[in-house]
Amino acid sequence: MESIHDVPTPALVLDLDVLEANLRRMAAKTAALGVSLRPHTKTHKCVEVAERQRALGAAGITVSTLYEARVFADHGFSDITWAFPVILSRLREVEELAARVTLRLILDSPAAVDALEALRRPLHVWLEVDSGQHRSGVDPESPAALELARALAESPWLIFDGLLTHAGHSYDGKSREEIAAVAEEERRVMAGLAERLRGEGIEVPAVSVGSTPGMSARPETARLDGVTEARPGNYVFYDYTQVALGSCRVVDCGVTVLASVVSHRPGDEQCVVDAGALAMSKDLGPRGHAGFGEVFADSGGGTGAGTLSGARLTSLSQEHGIVGAPFPVGTRLRVLPNHSCLTVAQFDEYLVVRGDEVVDRWKIWRGR
Amino acid sequence: MESIHDVPTPALVLDLDVLEANLRRMAAKTAALGVSLRPHTKTHKCVEVAERQRALGAAGITVSTLYEARVFADHGFSDITWAFPVILSRLREVEELAARVTLRLILDSPAAVDALEALRRPLHVWLEVDSGQHRSGVDPESPAALELARALAESPWLIFDGLLTHAGHSYDGKSREEIAAVAEEERRVMAGLAERLRGEGIEVPAVSVGSTPGMSARPETARLDGVTEARPGNYVFYDYTQVALGSCRVVDCGVTVLASVVSHRPGDEQCVVDAGALAMSKDLGPRGHAGFGEVFADSGGGTGAGTLSGARLTSLSQEHGIVGAPFPVGTRLRVLPNHSCLTVAQFDEYLVVRGDEVVDRWKIWRGR
Repeated sequence: MESIHDVPTPALVLDLDVLEANLRRMAAKTAALGVSLRPHTKTHKCVEVAERQRALGAAGITVSTLYEARVFADHGFSDITWAFPVILSRLREVEELAARVTLRLILDSPAAVDALEALRRPLHVWLEVDSGQHRSGVDPESPAALELARALAESPWLIFDGLLTHAGHSYDGKSREEIAAVAEEERRVMAGLAERLRGEGIEVPAVSVGSTPGMSARPETARLDGVTEARPGNYVFYDYTQVALGSCRVVDCGVTVLASVVSHRPGDEQCVVDAGALAMSKDLGPRGHAGFGEVFADSGGGTGAGTLSGARLTSLSQEHGIVGAPFPVGTRLRVLPNHSCLTVAQFDEYLVVRGDEVVDRWKIWRGR
Repeated sequence: MESIHDVPTPALVLDLDVLEANLRRMAAKTAALGVSLRPHTKTHKCVEVAERQRALGAAGITVSTLYEARVFADHGFSDITWAFPVILSRLREVEELAARVTLRLILDSPAAVDALEALRRPLHVWLEVDSGQHRSGVDPESPAALELARALAESPWLIFDGLLTHAGHSYDGKSREEIAAVAEEERRVMAGLAERLRGEGIEVPAVSVGSTPGMSARPETARLDGVTEARPGNYVFYDYTQVALGSCRVVDCGVTVLASVVSHRPGDEQCVVDAGALAMSKDLGPRGHAGFGEVFADSGGGTGAGTLSGARLTSLSQEHGIVGAPFPVGTRLRVLPNHSCLTVAQFDEYLVVRGDEVVDRWKIWRGR
């Protein structure tokens, strides 16, 4: 048996018991809410995790890059939504991939509609809608929303999948109630636009929403009237940001960075570990937070019994992390990342553990 | 001929003319200063760049991880300093690598000396000294500095290479003069400690210093008395932080991220591009700066003729970047990163260009 206490650091540790519980919980929640689950795989970038999501009933997957789409297509996933506004410099790859699997694109501009039309081949397309984040997506109140939906619905080539949104502003919520309100507003905007379009004679086959804070804050008893699918991603691992948002507890967090103390100056109230910006990412975490990762009280593998020590990473350079507590050289520490998606993308593999035992290694497909 | 105007985005573009000029300039400067150059390869992680550094006279290379050390060893580099405090959980890999090449370690603790001694094999070791950054390294005024140097010099197994420091606080300098003063202080501290140790009968074979701001701010006519080698790394590409520090001009910056506008809401003063946190990194750049990347006025390949447009990336999520200017969907933009080392580490390859022509693709060895 390989133990978590012996492996080289830095390493990214995935707690399999925690992952499985998180997967089951979200599958049950979407089932209770009456929507299908199309999980966003950008958080884990891992075939073994996606296979477990599929086994629990996921109806297709979501990806953030064409690279991810190709990887999952190569591993037997046949229904993939690329939930990023289609990049017009990559249409050759889109065509190649759409010939192999059901690839679903998203867009919010006439330029993108025209470019896809010009390919003269059937392509699934969602219309991206801005439900309040104001990042991308059409304004649901604007004439453009109607015009673009009509262009898609009436296209001789494009297949209109429906309306899709990501209420990313749920991450700005200051309480579970505020986040639940954002989630309900997301639903209301999307269902409302779908009704308006149907009133104009446009068939809207589906309505897709979802973020981990929104899905977590929504009560089990909520009604998702008008919504057909949800696309949360971060829930597989959560992270310190989700703890701060109330989406989960510390013991629900599925990935941690295992690090070693490499330097401590006698008398100093800090030490240096081998987890810097290229292990943690430089994500600042929840608003007003002043750290890059929270140090656990023990360095075992499982987060199931984990409590935070109160020490944290206070600054990062490329490979150096500064921990604001005086641990001796050689001490092994487990660190909870601020943002698991960005942390995972810095590693090539997960050390998969049950408790303190390393039971597997899973590849992280972090290409571009 | 493949043109930079046709390639898929996002892409990391390396301007070969700029790189070559940067390499020649630093080689000439270290020669003029009378020190050898052992460039830090953590910035580029690229065999082709390191080969050019070697051809211009580099005396060995510096790396930040054992992975980098292995990659360069596999590609014919035989003298490698791992300039990170030796990680005690990775001594098996250290032994394996030290059997293949001249691997030079650094340390600053009795625990590390003891762990290396216990391997009972000849290993090259530098003593890391804190010349003012207060990150890692022994306090040069402390008894520990003398004790550790003596332990290394008198070890039956370890080979004492000398004193090594990184004056990372040169990045905090507010003017070229302040940075030059930090660099001179770095020299003074290191040369002073070497003399003190020699006075105690300890042979100090070499003294290694270096950061790109310090090496850039130092006048050609400076004297590096007491110093034998310099280890700058970032100078191969520079970045917006180095421009702000006065280390270089915008036209000396060697890597940029090529991105496409994917979404723009009519009337908005911003747009969305396909360069988010996993293209740029979330490095905040120079102190007080409020952006994640500066947009060039034109999207050609060469930075040699480049000027900044004034627009910048104002926020980043995983794959989305927000540019604070209303470019239409499909527009191609070139973005100058805040921190080239972290940006490079997000990509798998460089598109190598001369002017607008793509002349090669070089692998980025970004494993861990």
